[in-house]
Amino acid sequence: MLRVYPERADYTSDVIHGLPVAVTSHRGSSAFNISPIQGKAVSNSRVQAYSYDLEKITPYSYSVFLDEANIHVNYSPSYHSGIYEFNFDKEDDNYIVVNVGNGNLETDGKSISGFQVIDNSISKIYLYVETEQIPTSVGRWGKDQINYQVKQSGNNGALVLRFNKNDKNIRLRYGISFISTEQAKKNLNKEITVYDVEKVALAGRAVWNATLSKISIEGGTEDQKTVFYTSLYRTYERMINISEEGKYFSAFDGKIHDDGGHAFFTDDWIWDTYRATHPLRVLIEPEMEANMVNSYIQMAQQSPQGWMPTFPEVTGDSHRMNGNHAVAVILDAYSKGLRGFDLKAAYKACKGALTEKSLLPWMKVPVTELDQFYNSNGYFPALKPGEKENCAQVHSWEKRQPVAVTLGTCYDDWCLSQIAKQLNKTDDYQYFLKRSYNYRNLFNPETSFFHPKDAEGKFIEPFDYRFSGGPGAREYYDENNGWTFRWDVQHNVADLVKLMGGADKFARNLDATFREPLGKSKYDFYSSLPDHTGNVGQFSMANEPSFHIPYLYNYAGQPWKTQKRIRQLLRYWYRNDLMGVPGDEDGGGMTAFVVFSSMGFYPVTPGSMSYNIGSPLFNDVKVRLGNGKIFEIVAKNCSEENKYIQSALLNGKEWNKPWFNHSDIANGGSLILIMGNKANKNWGSNLEDAPPSATPIP
Amino acid sequence: MLRVYPERADYTSDVIHGLPVAVTSHRGSSAFNISPIQGKAVSNSRVQAYSYDLEKITPYSYSVFLDEANIHVNYSPSYHSGIYEFNFDKEDDNYIVVNVGNGNLETDGKSISGFQVIDNSISKIYLYVETEQIPTSVGRWGKDQINYQVKQSGNNGALVLRFNKNDKNIRLRYGISFISTEQAKKNLNKEITVYDVEKVALAGRAVWNATLSKISIEGGTEDQKTVFYTSLYRTYERMINISEEGKYFSAFDGKIHDDGGHAFFTDDWIWDTYRATHPLRVLIEPEMEANMVNSYIQMAQQSPQGWMPTFPEVTGDSHRMNGNHAVAVILDAYSKGLRGFDLKAAYKACKGALTEKSLLPWMKVPVTELDQFYNSNGYFPALKPGEKENCAQVHSWEKRQPVAVTLGTCYDDWCLSQIAKQLNKTDDYQYFLKRSYNYRNLFNPETSFFHPKDAEGKFIEPFDYRFSGGPGAREYYDENNGWTFRWDVQHNVADLVKLMGGADKFARNLDATFREPLGKSKYDFYSSLPDHTGNVGQFSMANEPSFHIPYLYNYAGQPWKTQKRIRQLLRYWYRNDLMGVPGDEDGGGMTAFVVFSSMGFYPVTPGSMSYNIGSPLFNDVKVRLGNGKIFEIVAKNCSEENKYIQSALLNGKEWNKPWFNHSDIANGGSLILIMGNKANKNWGSNLEDAPPSATPIP
Repeated sequence: MLRVYPERADYTSDVIHGLPVAVTSHRGSSAFNISPIQGKAVSNSRVQAYSYDLEKITPYSYSVFLDEANIHVNYSPSYHSGIYEFNFDKEDDNYIVVNVGNGNLETDGKSISGFQVIDNSISKIYLYVETEQIPTSVGRWGKDQINYQVKQSGNNGALVLRFNKNDKNIRLRYGISFISTEQAKKNLNKEITVYDVEKVALAGRAVWNATLSKISIEGGTEDQKTVFYTSLYRTYERMINISEEGKYFSAFDGKIHDDGGHAFFTDDWIWDTYRATHPLRVLIEPEMEANMVNSYIQMAQQSPQGWMPTFPEVTGDSHRMNGNHAVAVILDAYSKGLRGFDLKAAYKACKGALTEKSLLPWMKVPVTELDQFYNSNGYFPALKPGEKENCAQVHSWEKRQPVAVTLGTCYDDWCLSQIAKQLNKTDDYQYFLKRSYNYRNLFNPETSFFHPKDAEGKFIEPFDYRFSGGPGAREYYDENNGWTFRWDVQHNVADLVKLMGGADKFARNLDATFREPLGKSKYDFYSSLPDHTGNVGQFSMANEPSFHIPYLYNYAGQPWKTQKRIRQLLRYWYRNDLMGVPGDEDGGGMTAFVVFSSMGFYPVTPGSMSYNIGSPLFNDVKVRLGNGKIFEIVAKNCSEENKYIQSALLNGKEWNKPWFNHSDIANGGSLILIMGNKANKNWGSNLEDAPPSATPIP
Repeated sequence: MLRVYPERADYTSDVIHGLPVAVTSHRGSSAFNISPIQGKAVSNSRVQAYSYDLEKITPYSYSVFLDEANIHVNYSPSYHSGIYEFNFDKEDDNYIVVNVGNGNLETDGKSISGFQVIDNSISKIYLYVETEQIPTSVGRWGKDQINYQVKQSGNNGALVLRFNKNDKNIRLRYGISFISTEQAKKNLNKEITVYDVEKVALAGRAVWNATLSKISIEGGTEDQKTVFYTSLYRTYERMINISEEGKYFSAFDGKIHDDGGHAFFTDDWIWDTYRATHPLRVLIEPEMEANMVNSYIQMAQQSPQGWMPTFPEVTGDSHRMNGNHAVAVILDAYSKGLRGFDLKAAYKACKGALTEKSLLPWMKVPVTELDQFYNSNGYFPALKPGEKENCAQVHSWEKRQPVAVTLGTCYDDWCLSQIAKQLNKTDDYQYFLKRSYNYRNLFNPETSFFHPKDAEGKFIEPFDYRFSGGPGAREYYDENNGWTFRWDVQHNVADLVKLMGGADKFARNLDATFREPLGKSKYDFYSSLPDHTGNVGQFSMANEPSFHIPYLYNYAGQPWKTQKRIRQLLRYWYRNDLMGVPGDEDGGGMTAFVVFSSMGFYPVTPGSMSYNIGSPLFNDVKVRLGNGKIFEIVAKNCSEENKYIQSALLNGKEWNKPWFNHSDIANGGSLILIMGNKANKNWGSNLEDAPPSATPIP
């Protein structure tokens, strides 16, 4: 049912360096590696480089033939453990080398245990390794009885297990832990009790099939199904559950905690995942999502300042990007009925992050003079062209990102105002709601773009919405250029329509976004804006701030263009082939768009109750909601050509709006769409039927 | 049978500007366009921008629905003509606008005729257009009775045909010519006598099916077949036959010539096409190839200097790139038995190009001091780092390309020596053969790379084989870096093996080429080397100087790695999906690699008689040679996994060499390969059985 393709060959060499130990390679930091070797040394590098022929890769298994070394490898992972089988093709001296990037390894002559220090040095990954066949010896590189010369350098320690010549099939299993080597061994013993790769793989397969069956589909092509389930699989990549037998190590206070019977999650790229990944889990994994919200609250409480983190990882809050979008995750979960977490505590941590902490990108520091300026003037100020940075706390590479900061904060303030309302904090509600309109301060009515202003309130000129702002447009925007941030008001699209001069002009601006040429050669463009990929015109299908844009035609009386765009984008950019995904997958941030859009709807405004309707790929989709009910989307006559909605029924009643409400489906329901190959330009085109904006236009 | 995909959406906007008139858009110069419009103006741009939904595209037809304008378009091309049908969806004012970039249009009230000046102003393209329905009026933009305001500017003239409101289905046909508008009309009248798009399309389909049936295949997947025939189709893109009723216009002397009963061809990108495109035609289209060789000789004779052109186009010799590789085309054709052309005249023109003309890239000038240096010292000198250009004739952007010039000229000199031998010019043979070893002068034994030298004979230092040389590495190499030019000695691979220190070191250097990482971020790399794409390590699958590299393992006793590489490269980079081709297709230069490699063999050394054996995709390939005989390649048990040759039979006899000779198959023959999923590392591994080098090692 599920195939996951290897990465595209583009810009990779075709060797693998060692074999991975699952989970322990952390953001490119040096990792454990396990390398089988037969006969004489074939390389002096500390980690063996292999020429290979990939045989099979699935979420629960991996098989490869090392075709120069003539070794077959089979692998299967469990939760905190994994198992390898190495088949050497002939009798010879057989070795397995275990390598650690920065840490320690030790042996009792049979097994190997050790740890690796990662990133912040608070966190360690512990490893325990054992083999089915007892090694004849275990020693260090080039020492002891191992007749094998390989250089060691720095912290790159390695231990070599030597086996009998007639031990042609070596099986090895390992456990990992963030707590201790003892716990790593316990994790292994609990999860893998056999030396049988296939058995472990079958168990993993059963878990994945149960998980992915939360959404079932009929119709569509085999490729569309493969892309759909691969995407759904990827949305489970993060956050990760780091509870080990009821305990977890928290990098937020460096302590081991009891998890209180609820799995503790971390590692979330929330700038990306608040848009669709968390809202998807609210639908199909509400219990897991509630545990994640609770984990966020615990992380804030374990932090010295008590602020809600923006980029929690195994190593703590790495505080990447801009914004404080955990507030959207919390509002979305609460609005859609999730409970079991302390909303007041969450509110406190979010408010602290938004008011006590600076809004500066990538900086976890108290408010600066730029934040004071923001509070007084309602926008984050840009430097004038050529002006030197005068705020000491600004990140030298990430810059101020003043438009991205302003627009993102408007969204966060809106979310916070909605939580304040739930908690009957009327003053806070009014205060943050007012601030959520600050985007207006940067709207340039001459151009209908959001345009950076200097501290004197003047728009920066001359200005190019494609290329101004240096690498990644960071002096003004972030990773994406002004064409993307033009649409960054998800909480109040109706007001954006108004600012742009009405629905027709708004729609023409959308058209222009998909049509405006790159303006430079492809490689020059991507050299300036390496994260603004997957282009259709200036639209980027590869970076999360763009993902709601194709749905915005729904707000302008032209839902048929949303339907056309969504189908086009899925077809061009999310394919069952080596093209893979068009940019950074961001821990499920990107593929959650694919899951929603393939089903036919999308949460343009996380935290609100509305879903926009697009154009489903499948004739029938059944979403098994966490409460046991089913939401079914039926698309009659759906096909590659029949992508346009002719008419619709919601829960059995005629439906002429390009959106529906969470409450319409929360206890199960059905959306029936009649599809055709020519646009019905009248369906959903009534402007009064446009999706609701989250706040009334004042 | 044949599908051709639209271009990938990447970096394109999704509108089409006008509709094309076949063949008249010349290298991006402004072109004729035909634009249907209904009702009021929807754009002020001179050419209409359309939102569209592509319905079908084949080599003989094109259908599109303009989904905002609600107009169906069907199109089919013939040789020098084409036909359109426009279906408007409702009754309204219907217009067709004919636009010319730089030229003239006139009307007699029913038809439109005119011309467009291209590039060099010697050449013109003439157009004649007529419609089935008589227009109610024909006039200029914004004038006459046409109630339609569009700006005109510069030379962008346009005429508007207006039709009755009830003429909802308008059919239009046109002829083109390089001779005159009268000839354009004659061409139309000769080729299209109906107003029936489908009939013209069916005739085109029959022509293409007959053409593509010159090679028939069995086995392989549907995708592999589609890629194979799409590739074969593309090899017919160039050269183009510009004979019109026995006459042609030559931009080489600005005159109209009688073609003497033989089609006259031009437009060839020979830096790219000498490698595989011409050798493919020698096999399956020998008569066409002989006409092309004759056309080359005529072009040289029509030129003032009598030199063989390097980049003949409709507009004359644009003299792009470096080298004088027509000499390889002529040698290849002659060696493999093609006759009907004057070898002496060809020799004279090639020798003139190689000895009287400068070797400088992109410059058609007499020899310079750098050429004199080359004659004396045996290499083209590089500037020292920071040294200013002192030779006035060097192209400011293209630079000296001294390594590329030296290596390319060695190849050309070798080809010329072989023709001299045929003509019993013994002195010339010796002279040019000796020069063909000049590559040795730039071989750096410390690094085993070809390394630029300054005029004092010192290697340029410090040096990075990946990035030294500025944009496209042009200060030293060309478009590709030193890793590609490391292998640029196709005429004497055995000597390169020797220079590198033997077969094992040679093979390890090949391995390193496929493994060496980019060394920069993807976009930085491609921003420096935008033509060095389709990477596997430093190997580029996207630019012709690399195409023989994967076959070079055959020369080092490791044919199994050639088999693995070829299958991997075809699978990763030539796909039936939106990824399209990995770089510039170069008028069939790239896809000829795909055709040969998919069949299982490749001409590493055009001009020699040997073909290298790779790994075919298909169980059975029948190549219909021009003499009526068939060369058949049978690959038993061939599949995606079974890519390795276990054993072979050539013409019924056991065959253990990774190559065969043209004479083995010239009168028909068979190569039977037994395939398996594991490499037989012994087959073809005997170094004495390596493919022959073209000259004995002195």
